[in-house]
Amino acid sequence: MELNRAFGVVLREERKKVAISQEELAHQSDLDRTYISLLERGKRNSTLKVLFSLCDALNISPSDFVKEMEKYIKSNLDQ
Amino acid sequence: MELNRAFGVVLREERKKVAISQEELAHQSDLDRTYISLLERGKRNSTLKVLFSLCDALNISPSDFVKEMEKYIKSNLDQ
Repeated sequence: MELNRAFGVVLREERKKVAISQEELAHQSDLDRTYISLLERGKRNSTLKVLFSLCDALNISPSDFVKEMEKYIKSNLDQ
Repeated sequence: MELNRAFGVVLREERKKVAISQEELAHQSDLDRTYISLLERGKRNSTLKVLFSLCDALNISPSDFVKEMEKYIKSNLDQ
């Protein structure tokens, strides 16, 4: 599903920006490493609670994270 | 939980702005009326998929919706 894929792509990008591993992100956001991996591969439909927890650990506002998702979705629609 | 409450408050405000009932919003976003009611009362942790569906029906971008949530959370913390 397009939305989950957008979430996963942005999550991976933002994690790379702060240069932390899935394990570190999992620890900082109090989530399971396996769940982070599923999210990055677009296999899960995140909740708002998870979004806010991840963004806290990634030093990005949740609204900016969602804006990046919108850009990704738009750029894929335009192709 | 603060986050769910922020979601509910913003959802209700945005629904009032476009002047539609919970029933109409439920129909337009392909959700149950009872679920809309639970969300507005802060009783559910929305998924990103639900956020995007609701925002589509409410004519607001999901990132702007989340920005309104951030404002609400910040204003409540400042008190």
